[in-house]
Amino acid sequence: MTGVAFPIGRSFDFTAIGRLCIDLNANEINRPMEQTMTFTKYVGGSPANIAIGMSRLGHRTAFIGKIANDQMGRFIRGYLDKEGIDTRNVVDDRTGAVTGLAFTEIMSPTDCSILMYRDNVADLKLSPSEVDEELIASSKVLLVSGTALAASPSREAVLLAVDYARRHGTIVAFDLDYRPYTWKSEEETATYYNLVAEKSDILIGTREEFDCTEKFEHNPDRSDRYTASKWFGHSADIVIIKHGKEGSIAYSADGGEHRARSFPAKVVKTFGAGDSYAAGFLHGLMSGWTIGKSMEYGSAAACIVISSHSCSDAMPTVSQVDDYIEQCARGEITAN
Amino acid sequence: MTGVAFPIGRSFDFTAIGRLCIDLNANEINRPMEQTMTFTKYVGGSPANIAIGMSRLGHRTAFIGKIANDQMGRFIRGYLDKEGIDTRNVVDDRTGAVTGLAFTEIMSPTDCSILMYRDNVADLKLSPSEVDEELIASSKVLLVSGTALAASPSREAVLLAVDYARRHGTIVAFDLDYRPYTWKSEEETATYYNLVAEKSDILIGTREEFDCTEKFEHNPDRSDRYTASKWFGHSADIVIIKHGKEGSIAYSADGGEHRARSFPAKVVKTFGAGDSYAAGFLHGLMSGWTIGKSMEYGSAAACIVISSHSCSDAMPTVSQVDDYIEQCARGEITAN
Amino acid sequence: MTGVAFPIGRSFDFTAIGRLCIDLNANEINRPMEQTMTFTKYVGGSPANIAIGMSRLGHRTAFIGKIANDQMGRFIRGYLDKEGIDTRNVVDDRTGAVTGLAFTEIMSPTDCSILMYRDNVADLKLSPSEVDEELIASSKVLLVSGTALAASPSREAVLLAVDYARRHGTIVAFDLDYRPYTWKSEEETATYYNLVAEKSDILIGTREEFDCTEKFEHNPDRSDRYTASKWFGHSADIVIIKHGKEGSIAYSADGGEHRARSFPAKVVKTFGAGDSYAAGFLHGLMSGWTIGKSMEYGSAAACIVISSHSCSDAMPTVSQVDDYIEQCARGEITAN
Amino acid sequence: MTGVAFPIGRSFDFTAIGRLCIDLNANEINRPMEQTMTFTKYVGGSPANIAIGMSRLGHRTAFIGKIANDQMGRFIRGYLDKEGIDTRNVVDDRTGAVTGLAFTEIMSPTDCSILMYRDNVADLKLSPSEVDEELIASSKVLLVSGTALAASPSREAVLLAVDYARRHGTIVAFDLDYRPYTWKSEEETATYYNLVAEKSDILIGTREEFDCTEKFEHNPDRSDRYTASKWFGHSADIVIIKHGKEGSIAYSADGGEHRARSFPAKVVKTFGAGDSYAAGFLHGLMSGWTIGKSMEYGSAAACIVISSHSCSDAMPTVSQVDDYIEQCARGEITAN
Repeated sequence: MTGVAFPIGRSFDFTAIGRLCIDLNANEINRPMEQTMTFTKYVGGSPANIAIGMSRLGHRTAFIGKIANDQMGRFIRGYLDKEGIDTRNVVDDRTGAVTGLAFTEIMSPTDCSILMYRDNVADLKLSPSEVDEELIASSKVLLVSGTALAASPSREAVLLAVDYARRHGTIVAFDLDYRPYTWKSEEETATYYNLVAEKSDILIGTREEFDCTEKFEHNPDRSDRYTASKWFGHSADIVIIKHGKEGSIAYSADGGEHRARSFPAKVVKTFGAGDSYAAGFLHGLMSGWTIGKSMEYGSAAACIVISSHSCSDAMPTVSQVDDYIEQCARGEITAN
Repeated sequence: MTGVAFPIGRSFDFTAIGRLCIDLNANEINRPMEQTMTFTKYVGGSPANIAIGMSRLGHRTAFIGKIANDQMGRFIRGYLDKEGIDTRNVVDDRTGAVTGLAFTEIMSPTDCSILMYRDNVADLKLSPSEVDEELIASSKVLLVSGTALAASPSREAVLLAVDYARRHGTIVAFDLDYRPYTWKSEEETATYYNLVAEKSDILIGTREEFDCTEKFEHNPDRSDRYTASKWFGHSADIVIIKHGKEGSIAYSADGGEHRARSFPAKVVKTFGAGDSYAAGFLHGLMSGWTIGKSMEYGSAAACIVISSHSCSDAMPTVSQVDDYIEQCARGEITAN
Repeated sequence: MTGVAFPIGRSFDFTAIGRLCIDLNANEINRPMEQTMTFTKYVGGSPANIAIGMSRLGHRTAFIGKIANDQMGRFIRGYLDKEGIDTRNVVDDRTGAVTGLAFTEIMSPTDCSILMYRDNVADLKLSPSEVDEELIASSKVLLVSGTALAASPSREAVLLAVDYARRHGTIVAFDLDYRPYTWKSEEETATYYNLVAEKSDILIGTREEFDCTEKFEHNPDRSDRYTASKWFGHSADIVIIKHGKEGSIAYSADGGEHRARSFPAKVVKTFGAGDSYAAGFLHGLMSGWTIGKSMEYGSAAACIVISSHSCSDAMPTVSQVDDYIEQCARGEITAN
Repeated sequence: MTGVAFPIGRSFDFTAIGRLCIDLNANEINRPMEQTMTFTKYVGGSPANIAIGMSRLGHRTAFIGKIANDQMGRFIRGYLDKEGIDTRNVVDDRTGAVTGLAFTEIMSPTDCSILMYRDNVADLKLSPSEVDEELIASSKVLLVSGTALAASPSREAVLLAVDYARRHGTIVAFDLDYRPYTWKSEEETATYYNLVAEKSDILIGTREEFDCTEKFEHNPDRSDRYTASKWFGHSADIVIIKHGKEGSIAYSADGGEHRARSFPAKVVKTFGAGDSYAAGFLHGLMSGWTIGKSMEYGSAAACIVISSHSCSDAMPTVSQVDDYIEQCARGEITAN
């Protein structure tokens, strides 16, 4: 059993709240960005990627966010629409905010970095009164991206969205998604991460991200078991703690501890691994699979994305993930 | 019974967190401030007044706050020290912040207003890492003033203080104390008031202040019963809703509804009534009295303050409150 | 001769631009402010004091400034009106700005300090379109206070006012009046002080204030003669450099160098000395007196103010200054 | 004769101060940017383009500016170095500022627009103390871009640079280059444009840009002659007012009025026309040519840039401009 009881009879399987951005991916890779002369444009942002992933995996998906009133914003809305994602609660900014940008630098498959433009971004201007309670009430899951807590009024919009989800029995999945820029201090991050984590059913983050939530705790050994137990004392059913190459561990409220199998991949870059993992894992959970099988599905989905040039564009469908798992089983895919 | 089980074996009865300010009270009253030529200086700020009141009523009291590194800040610390209030967690600002000011205008006993200086004030610069967990752990009660939630980093400091209180079983008393300046929007106020109210054992506010918390609720009749029930569904034991001249109603989690008797007073001004009421009421509760008797004591304490020129300086001792109640009983005090 | 040719046939003798504030002067003096319990309210701000001084000395005076839309702002307007100063170009702020405050601390006659409230002040919100060109065109003198250059949009309003003065042949008197708060850097101060000084006919400042203007110059010996010469190369006719107790030196464009006689005084505090000196000096200059006699008159006016509790309220009339000089001549006044 | 006497015996012919940015030019053009999927990166910013143009035309060129401490900043410095432009006074930002971006949208040769990223940009963080007086003293010309006046501390750095130029007899060329973003108000623009224009020898701008400088003037007919005369009353020798397709008019202090011949071009986009015109014109002037011939050379240089995909990369050399003029003379180039 999964430990998560998703509500039934809802119009949407999955609604994400948070940033909608643009990735500008280097076309000439394996070099410093100084030597990259052309870039390709994609929709980006962790919750955007996960929503696109869930839609491709067959889930009825919606998004709550805010976009700039410019060509970048219109491109984002158009892309989501094309992917079949409901954008009724994607609001146009009217204050002259811009679209967040992420220029990628791929020095090598394992040495990737991002140059961010996060000043005056539209996504952080979503306000509480713009959050559609009815949409959350008609979704099985609300996925919250931690970055959306980094500044007001987006911070308050997310806190309200979580309250709406609790009020209507919508499952809250919290992807910690910590990005230091935008946050003023680690204390601030700890404060808001705790407020949302207390009310979340599913938590997903790296060990470092969970460390952020424990700034005012006493967990000197950085024990995953301690971390998970804390949240089981509040609302959590599942806590996934990711350890990079060492793999992820999922704890369940019934005391279970699960580790995923991993798959080989021809890695182009590491970006997008976490987002495709989250989509694959949640797909499994919502399909009624075991935690172990869901984690495996997430791993396979992640392998597909890191083997590609883009993140959002590479999010796989069910048949793509199934194929990948079978190809691995037949030994047709090996690591680079 | 009171419905509130205060912890025992603590070094402090009462710790307040929030603003420490200066009141500049018009010496020439019953006229517009334009015609007031001299002002007298007092320590002010709602939680400061309540803490002074609690100390005068015999409780071991401490304060958590931040003061400007100037003559006004030093005056405040000196006054608290003199009143026997522990100031180990009153932190000196190092950023050049100023002390908040409140110039009072007393046009008539019932027509009073305040001219506030709240830009760049020290009290809102208290940060989470400056909050002493040990002090909260060793207090029976933590009183939170809503105004301290109005801006960062004081907002996060208060949210952390409330978490410390919950972690250690310290009773949280939340005085909504809503002041529109400093807040950016009603949505923001609603968000943070709800987050603290959810974790509070005792809530005290005016009907208008509780309306602020219900911006995203459906309580069109502004029903007190509805309001109180919401918080009983979280952590509350007692919810007091104040209706100005119509008096206050206290709801208790066991379904009780209590109204206080009132006393006559020769009113000079209305400032400080709520703070002295809170001190008197909490004194009663912590003395093991019934809610009704505690409310009556709060009302008498309030009468003493509104009959005086100052707020903090007029906070009464036990014998002053007892005397006032007796004088009223003997008909020696009549309204103006 | 004075070296300054004032225009004739103007409706106003003197118009000042800059801050209008409130002084809150300690009533209990010769002690730290922590021990001062009451304060008396006066109109304050250097250009306000000079304008009040000029009006009391018989000049037709106007003011260009901005006041808060509150009791403090209304008190200021009322006081100026009562003094006969034209306030048609004193604009009411509509943004919620406050009135600047200066709490004085008088430890001893020679140890005085000020606690300033300068955040979000109305006077720095005067904007260029609010400056009345016609008023400047109909004034003989425009007095500019350097503090008004400390922030936008007041900075731009003053720069425009100076251009209007030049366009219409109005004499520009620049009182450097440097106050470190509000300014972001010494570089910024140097930039704007130079821009106004270049276009000024009369410059008045302390040696330290002139140092501020020479941050990007080479005057290692801090030579007054070098300083004065620089401005004679632009528009200046008279440059007065003040050296505190050592007295002031006035340089004139014709090569003259003048030192003022000084007078004894029973000093209460040092505040306001510069403002009353400026008013007395300009009164002399506009009366066609020599620079030396004008400086002497300024010194006597300054003595009267520093012997009093207030600044603005103590600004003397012609008969008061004349009396003071005569009393000194008769040896009736001695220093404390 | 040109009316401008350039100093001799200087190490540099030309130094520009102002922004260094990145242009991201749409590769797929003649469509809305929503449909553009890839972008090519170029160095951009008006003064950068002009400096590159001057260097290609054979002038010893330097730049005063500030770049982000990231891959974009390093790309800019590398590009200038490669072009032979002295970057000793190109300062690295240390505050986390970003590089300004300009995404171009080319709907058609005559319908072009720009999507700007100008929040927290490094170029506006240049401070006065970072301006190298010696570099300006050793340059024949200082080119000032008006956009650098849009915010502090760049504003003050430019004002100081202009003062250094005046102190050392360096010719000041002021390219108004007005971009509404970043500026807070038209009043602010007028204020600072006037302060620099007063001290400039050569002014270049569109009619609309000169209108910006006359917000507090009385030129209801928007007369070019009136505009030019105003600046001849200060320091100007040449004032060029551009009227888009109707061509440009150059006024000289001796009363002359000059119009340039125009050339045909196969226009790709209009960006960069003004910058290449400025480089060509200043090249002529510094070569001792007549104003008319210099304007013609500027026009030909502009035609080359608007026939290309980029701005900076397309700045022509002397032989390219000469060729273009000859090809036009032979009728080999016709308009699109």
